[in-house]
Amino acid sequence: MSGTQLPEVVPASGMPASVTIWEVGARDGLQNETTVLSAQTKIEFINRLAATGLPIVEATSFVRPEWVPQLADAEDVMAALPLDEAVRYPVLVPNLAGLERADAAGVRDIAVFASATETFAKKNLNRTLGEQMNMFAPVIQEAKARGMSVRGYVSMCFGDPWEGVVAKSQVVSVCGQLLAAGCDSISLGDTIGVATPGQVHELITDVTRFVDIAALAVHFHDTYGQALSNTYAALQAGVTTVDSSAGGLGGCPYAKSATGNLATEDLVWMLDGLGIATGVDLASLVQTSRWLADELGRPSPSRVVRALS
Amino acid sequence: MSGTQLPEVVPASGMPASVTIWEVGARDGLQNETTVLSAQTKIEFINRLAATGLPIVEATSFVRPEWVPQLADAEDVMAALPLDEAVRYPVLVPNLAGLERADAAGVRDIAVFASATETFAKKNLNRTLGEQMNMFAPVIQEAKARGMSVRGYVSMCFGDPWEGVVAKSQVVSVCGQLLAAGCDSISLGDTIGVATPGQVHELITDVTRFVDIAALAVHFHDTYGQALSNTYAALQAGVTTVDSSAGGLGGCPYAKSATGNLATEDLVWMLDGLGIATGVDLASLVQTSRWLADELGRPSPSRVVRALS
Repeated sequence: MSGTQLPEVVPASGMPASVTIWEVGARDGLQNETTVLSAQTKIEFINRLAATGLPIVEATSFVRPEWVPQLADAEDVMAALPLDEAVRYPVLVPNLAGLERADAAGVRDIAVFASATETFAKKNLNRTLGEQMNMFAPVIQEAKARGMSVRGYVSMCFGDPWEGVVAKSQVVSVCGQLLAAGCDSISLGDTIGVATPGQVHELITDVTRFVDIAALAVHFHDTYGQALSNTYAALQAGVTTVDSSAGGLGGCPYAKSATGNLATEDLVWMLDGLGIATGVDLASLVQTSRWLADELGRPSPSRVVRALS
Repeated sequence: MSGTQLPEVVPASGMPASVTIWEVGARDGLQNETTVLSAQTKIEFINRLAATGLPIVEATSFVRPEWVPQLADAEDVMAALPLDEAVRYPVLVPNLAGLERADAAGVRDIAVFASATETFAKKNLNRTLGEQMNMFAPVIQEAKARGMSVRGYVSMCFGDPWEGVVAKSQVVSVCGQLLAAGCDSISLGDTIGVATPGQVHELITDVTRFVDIAALAVHFHDTYGQALSNTYAALQAGVTTVDSSAGGLGGCPYAKSATGNLATEDLVWMLDGLGIATGVDLASLVQTSRWLADELGRPSPSRVVRALS
């Protein structure tokens, strides 16, 4: 059956020549897994992900250990990574204390995690939508002053479990605030997985009125099975950076029915088929996710991982 | 959390105003389920599917009972359906014996199941690719003579588990043979789920050089997670009939890793979000698939069904 191991390559019009995959499995994925892995296993996971050709492997989160016990070993993980190499290992940083820890650990790329909605800002940050930038702006500015790159995640861009429809103007405004504070790039997140392609195209069109498309990423969850078609719509809108999670790890701990991020393998299958360069070796990636699923004691939610296993 | 029960409606450019969903769960879905259901349960399933607003509910298959034990009760199922109503209940028919049985049962719409590849024609039909029309042409002609409509399924259009890449000319040629024999419509099947959007667009472009786009359907499997993005690409190419399976039931018994058809619920979520009319009530459909999953004793593979349960 080796003929089915790789998709046939047939390009589509209007697609980018290459896509940068921003791998979030070791951070966004693992933080939502109940089985706590050892630092050694995480280090092996991250190193294996980098060895598949992924250019960016988000590694951990410098939050208070009691908030996310899975990532309490952030210092141990970062200390073991080859931070001088070409692969980038960004980390999530919620505040100045986290930034100090990240800087001491040698981190060169950070991300902050903002909300597009009032309710989620309250629940996740204990801040109003208007107040969240009081928290993030000093972090972004200090990180830039120390020569780091800063990504701004915007969550709940396409729907909110408590508020329902999210006004696009609210999302656009948060993107503007993050850019004004100094963020180098923005990732638009469908935290609860409700988006559909028209919505994706419309929001990207609005945001790219002031955000360079090269600085814009999309981050889809597959809760309603929409992640890959939304990604396709985003590529058609010109986006060239896509967040995904090896083996489909993860989800959002505060969004009831989130069933995980877009699986990197399912994304790479589509991009390989479209002839879009990613630098990622699909077979090694599948092997890595299969190994991690064993460590977690459950099958991978990635369809490609299951089909090729 | 009622705000998340339905997607926000944001149309995308270049999309059709409405899509006809050709529901295959009761035939293509059930024939691949190991738990054999009673005729009564199948009848209830089909009636509930029709009540959700689905315009076409493929009901069963008039094959030899020993081939597909799950569908051995085709006569009992058809006898209980309201065949005089607006909803259409097509059935699969492999040969003239099956056509006689279908006609006696009051069937008005049949489908034949052709292969785009030599190996699958051999395995599924015990015919060469060149010989399969000897089998189908008399069935199609006789069905047309009796006033039935005939759909031609073409399987393995985008890849074959034994042969790998499938020459497009082979697929196009089988479509032409089916049309020439009298088929009213064609369904292009990605039986093993390997297709990607560029491939989909290219094949549709080729086939619609001689098949009216209104007579063309697509039939995707989600083995590699690609079914919905391929459907989106097909809609962009002008296709307005999409096959799907309630709750993601089914797969292909001869294709090793097939994990089921595109779930109708995941399709309807996207179409609802795009503002494309289908006539289907998503909430009733989810209820129906949840009920059937209980009858089958396992969770539904549809992400929408799981998220809304």
